[in-house]
Amino acid sequence: MTAEAPPRIRLTEVGPRDGLQNEPEIISLDAKVRFIERLSDAGLPAIEIGSFVRRDRVPQMADTEDVARRLKGRTDAALIALVPNLRGIDRALDVGLSTIAVFTAASDAFATANIGMRVDESLGVFRDVVRSATQRGAAVRGYISTAWWCPYTGPVEPDAVRRVALALLDMGCANLGIADTIGAATPGEVRRLLELLLREIPVRTIGVHFHDTRGTALANVLASMEMGITAVDASAGGLGGCPFAPGALGNLATEDLVYMLHGMGVKTGVDLEKLRGASLEMEAILGRRLPSHYLHAGPMRRSAV
Amino acid sequence: MTAEAPPRIRLTEVGPRDGLQNEPEIISLDAKVRFIERLSDAGLPAIEIGSFVRRDRVPQMADTEDVARRLKGRTDAALIALVPNLRGIDRALDVGLSTIAVFTAASDAFATANIGMRVDESLGVFRDVVRSATQRGAAVRGYISTAWWCPYTGPVEPDAVRRVALALLDMGCANLGIADTIGAATPGEVRRLLELLLREIPVRTIGVHFHDTRGTALANVLASMEMGITAVDASAGGLGGCPFAPGALGNLATEDLVYMLHGMGVKTGVDLEKLRGASLEMEAILGRRLPSHYLHAGPMRRSAV
Repeated sequence: MTAEAPPRIRLTEVGPRDGLQNEPEIISLDAKVRFIERLSDAGLPAIEIGSFVRRDRVPQMADTEDVARRLKGRTDAALIALVPNLRGIDRALDVGLSTIAVFTAASDAFATANIGMRVDESLGVFRDVVRSATQRGAAVRGYISTAWWCPYTGPVEPDAVRRVALALLDMGCANLGIADTIGAATPGEVRRLLELLLREIPVRTIGVHFHDTRGTALANVLASMEMGITAVDASAGGLGGCPFAPGALGNLATEDLVYMLHGMGVKTGVDLEKLRGASLEMEAILGRRLPSHYLHAGPMRRSAV
Repeated sequence: MTAEAPPRIRLTEVGPRDGLQNEPEIISLDAKVRFIERLSDAGLPAIEIGSFVRRDRVPQMADTEDVARRLKGRTDAALIALVPNLRGIDRALDVGLSTIAVFTAASDAFATANIGMRVDESLGVFRDVVRSATQRGAAVRGYISTAWWCPYTGPVEPDAVRRVALALLDMGCANLGIADTIGAATPGEVRRLLELLLREIPVRTIGVHFHDTRGTALANVLASMEMGITAVDASAGGLGGCPFAPGALGNLATEDLVYMLHGMGVKTGVDLEKLRGASLEMEAILGRRLPSHYLHAGPMRRSAV
């Protein structure tokens, strides 16, 4: 039984936001801008550049407006920022961003810990945010964290994800990011949830966002592709792990994903060696080994015997 | 399109041999024996414990006879050693091993570099080895290295693998280990080769052996399972990477594989936490972080909110 791979996968690069947000040392504005420019230059079509959350809670993202201003008109990539409230919409649109993301979860416990609201409350808040954004011409992506497993309450019912997904689309989100926040999902669970969602939701509006905490992220992407999914998030270098446990945790590395996809004949538009260059530069700035496999293995070379 | 997972996967644990053979510091006999006993106690049904190769070439494996003697009658697992020649058969059978493995490749360049013989020459040598082993009641596994990519000559033709596979089965090998030695294969290439092999070879005789050099090993296992494969190699802790590049290269980690399989409802007979304990002890002995993801992430806990 051979699954046909889709001809193309649309990548969303989340390294500059989901990847860097937990880094303890503040990355300079110059370094961030250069990183995003290099990622765009490598062909990544959509890049999360930051978030308009409270500076005291996520100091690494305090300069998102400056990042956006500096990048304005200088990249081919669609630039995306996370927006938690109406005030965030103003800030995002003022600096020229045309795509924003809102963040909720499938688990009340996680939503409360992460964004300070229960899921239903957050959907109420986001209803206004999404309306405001779409009225002003911006596209909105709706993220659903803990779509398979919550660190506080355990396994998440697929139907809980379905309800949030339908609510986000109903309020005007253009597409969804279904996230395995703690990197616990395995391919069977991925298929089960996607099967349920695809009964009511067009496949092109569903993107998947896996963390490689337990090594299953690429296998989960493969299972998703077999269900028809064509939008996948990843993080350059695998940025996003706990900086104190090198090699562990972290987002799916964009290099590993692109390597696999190109090996399968799936187009991404990404120049893998340019991407690797961007990640190696960020690795040098951070001064620690990033978890991406391909980043260190590099391309195969046909040696002389 | 939902693939049905097989009810059970038969694992071959290669950590004590493929994993440790490149470690620069010699692991003591006691530590090796204890490691293998713990792996067996964790439920791994088959374990590669060493090889009867030249001591000067692989000093880490110089004590394989002693390891086998010490373990005799003390594990439930089938213990396997690599045997390069007729002399090795005597040594393996003398210490009570009933399963051996022979090692060739699909690429002449790699076979010449690795075992000092072209592929055809090695098949000639192994014909006598396999005959001798089977006549004396031992089962033989035939490994085919560089089944997808050779580090010297590039991509390997599936038909080259097919010819070696048929020759190994023809000479009496009970089963095959199809190995992505440099960790370069992606799921499309895995399917292509397996599809070809499965036209002539019973699925139960084919095992797969992936390295996680570029992060694709678990996705390749998933693709293999979808083709019906039910025998997979892995290495406790992901042992087998280059010790000088922590986190990089290396075999597929048994913990990550077992975590994924159990998450999919596939039985392995392995107690994942016992396995993790064995690998953590070896990690402490080696004094460096092993690449297995699950080893460090550990089980999910349902925390109080």
